[in-house]
Amino acid sequence: MTSLAEMIEEGDVDAIHAWLAEAGTLDIAEELTRIESGEKALALRLLSRDRALDVFESLDPADQQQVLEGLRGDRVRQLIEEMDPDDRARLLDELPAKVAHRFLSQLSPHERQLTNTLLGYPPESAGRVMSPEFVSLRADMTVEEALAKVRRAGSVAETIYMLPVTDDQRRLVGVVSLKQLVLADPGESVADLMATDIHFARVTDDQEVAARLIQEADLIGLPVVDSEDRIVGVFTVDDAMEIIEAEETEDLARHGATSPLGRPYMAASAFGIARARATWLLILIVAAALTVNVLHYFEGTLETVVTLALFIPLLIGTGGNAGAQAAVAVIRAMAVAEVRFGDIPRVIWREARVGLMLGVMLAVMSFLPVAVLFGSDIGLVVSLTLVALCTWATFAGAMLPMLAQRVGVDPAVVSAPLITTLVDATGLVVYFLIARAVLPMI
Amino acid sequence: MTSLAEMIEEGDVDAIHAWLAEAGTLDIAEELTRIESGEKALALRLLSRDRALDVFESLDPADQQQVLEGLRGDRVRQLIEEMDPDDRARLLDELPAKVAHRFLSQLSPHERQLTNTLLGYPPESAGRVMSPEFVSLRADMTVEEALAKVRRAGSVAETIYMLPVTDDQRRLVGVVSLKQLVLADPGESVADLMATDIHFARVTDDQEVAARLIQEADLIGLPVVDSEDRIVGVFTVDDAMEIIEAEETEDLARHGATSPLGRPYMAASAFGIARARATWLLILIVAAALTVNVLHYFEGTLETVVTLALFIPLLIGTGGNAGAQAAVAVIRAMAVAEVRFGDIPRVIWREARVGLMLGVMLAVMSFLPVAVLFGSDIGLVVSLTLVALCTWATFAGAMLPMLAQRVGVDPAVVSAPLITTLVDATGLVVYFLIARAVLPMI
Repeated sequence: MTSLAEMIEEGDVDAIHAWLAEAGTLDIAEELTRIESGEKALALRLLSRDRALDVFESLDPADQQQVLEGLRGDRVRQLIEEMDPDDRARLLDELPAKVAHRFLSQLSPHERQLTNTLLGYPPESAGRVMSPEFVSLRADMTVEEALAKVRRAGSVAETIYMLPVTDDQRRLVGVVSLKQLVLADPGESVADLMATDIHFARVTDDQEVAARLIQEADLIGLPVVDSEDRIVGVFTVDDAMEIIEAEETEDLARHGATSPLGRPYMAASAFGIARARATWLLILIVAAALTVNVLHYFEGTLETVVTLALFIPLLIGTGGNAGAQAAVAVIRAMAVAEVRFGDIPRVIWREARVGLMLGVMLAVMSFLPVAVLFGSDIGLVVSLTLVALCTWATFAGAMLPMLAQRVGVDPAVVSAPLITTLVDATGLVVYFLIARAVLPMI
Repeated sequence: MTSLAEMIEEGDVDAIHAWLAEAGTLDIAEELTRIESGEKALALRLLSRDRALDVFESLDPADQQQVLEGLRGDRVRQLIEEMDPDDRARLLDELPAKVAHRFLSQLSPHERQLTNTLLGYPPESAGRVMSPEFVSLRADMTVEEALAKVRRAGSVAETIYMLPVTDDQRRLVGVVSLKQLVLADPGESVADLMATDIHFARVTDDQEVAARLIQEADLIGLPVVDSEDRIVGVFTVDDAMEIIEAEETEDLARHGATSPLGRPYMAASAFGIARARATWLLILIVAAALTVNVLHYFEGTLETVVTLALFIPLLIGTGGNAGAQAAVAVIRAMAVAEVRFGDIPRVIWREARVGLMLGVMLAVMSFLPVAVLFGSDIGLVVSLTLVALCTWATFAGAMLPMLAQRVGVDPAVVSAPLITTLVDATGLVVYFLIARAVLPMI
């Protein structure tokens, strides 16, 4: 099969037409993320209005922006006007302020107000991503009345599967699901059906926390309330999945010592990728300068026993790996809320034992081969260093992310690569101190 | 607040009762993952039947197993009988075969058959996690008839929000949502409402692929069909979220050079954690032995210019970081299907350029400080090595995961730590070859 990118390159409009007629909206969206920014709008211009909107809504904000740049004014207005308010707020957030302002001014007053409301909440908050278009019920309604209201108001709501129930002050008092309504007797009252022990989020709550709640409690939607407990929106499961994926991509990027790209890999330029990686690489090489200092300090020892140099990569590599193991485990456990700050003493005590066990295992296995090839003195130095290094690296790998969280830094920032680099320098000190203590000739 | 673990330790049954009466099911489930295996059943024994089931269903299979071990036979049977068939299949999968068989034999014939069907599909397949209890419609029904069928059959179905439409051979021909049915005119026909351009999975499809499809297409449920296109189940969004989380935890674990724990962090023992990490640590230290060999080979060069040893940790650390950056980016892009095998030439060309850019940047920045402190010859060697190393590491980091996928190995296995270790050894060769070529005294 020829890809869309190739068809565009060849300027084969007939082939593009034929392919677009066959392809699903997801396929089209996927191909769009893989072609160059200037040409992304082309496919959308050839699609019908409805399909174009479907494709457009499946794109990331970064891709959406590139598409908009290639479309004429009325088509742009149409696409933006027809988006869900929360998706629209997310897109406008990413656009340059001037462009965002121009788009906002073109919206109908109703849509503009919805979007403005969302944009008024803090970045990364549940308020930003909730849908302000929902159907709420009253506890004194019968099931029949409730279903009638859903039919009347449901067509513009983003979800009608989770229906918040409010009192006359619009305060959230319960939740019923559409499933309950459909399966219930028409004469039953909403008050009898609704759950009152419910999960909800506040507009100012962190997006990720709200998304994780949806995931853990297996919800279709989560009511979002303001500071006076009044319902102002609904956070849906598809937004939750998107937020969790973005967070995981970000955490993963940090473990790989890079900033998140913010766009699909194939849509980024080589320069854009290099820029996303440069900062961390610089931070880490500056931190690594510490290892040069440590070795410079022990240069005399190295000159006397050059053999010690042979084990430097192996030892610091192993220490780095042990530290990364602990860091990844603890950061992940904190991200999914399995570990809290109060667990620090237990986590430290446990990781220190884990490090000791691993260190002893590696030391026992390494002693014989090293002793046979380089003498039992060197074997002893390497083995002792492995024990000390694994214990220390595991301890530090678990400790640093927890401390970072304590002082308000995202624990994923103190990720494996940073810990590895810090462990490198201290590991070398340990290695040379042990060598000086054990080797007779120094 | 005293934690459940502490209350149990103090044997304060009144306090436990009071806490259980107040706490939500998610809170109880979360506390249960944090207490020791022998005591997990205690809280469940004190709960009402319905709440106990809710809590039990929120637990991971590993925790569920520990709970079951602490309960009496009839309570065990009851809990298992009342689980959703797909969750039950997942639990039975994790239990020792003998125990699983005993539980299965206690189920009612209907529940046993549902579970057996699921267990008949391959591990990790969509068939294993789909729900076999769903409501299907026929295209010639009216909306009124369809809603009547949903009311009749919906109470046992896991979801009624996505309703597959079949022909008289039970073959999938379309999908309607409950939202469409509720909002439509009662006299309309299902055929007019249903979408026919639909997403579906086959029973043998990979779970993760099906889950990612639900995520990307923003679905509430995905119909699952057998090899003859007959509908056999529904894959729901909450199962999709769980599967994606498990996959991400697994990928993250691999980036941290460890096997997945398979249970919540706090519920694992120190020995269990050490065991999960030992294998990779051993593999990596054996791979690192290569660096000892390389340095042994160049020992003469090192003896002549001991200063070269000072830069070993900095250089291999930087190479490792650059390799990890590329590996994490490419593995993630493959996991979310942004990069396919056919993209190899483009990815390699792009990553090689990224590596070169980063290498040149670091080389330019490092030259002056190194030249001032250790002489311009050493500065030149370090800078040239940084260029070569970053280019090579970035190339290898992008390449190896793609090759792994090509030969059928999960790309996440060829993760950052393995690539780092492999780059270490080759990086040292490059370093010493450059040193020999540049330095006059060798």
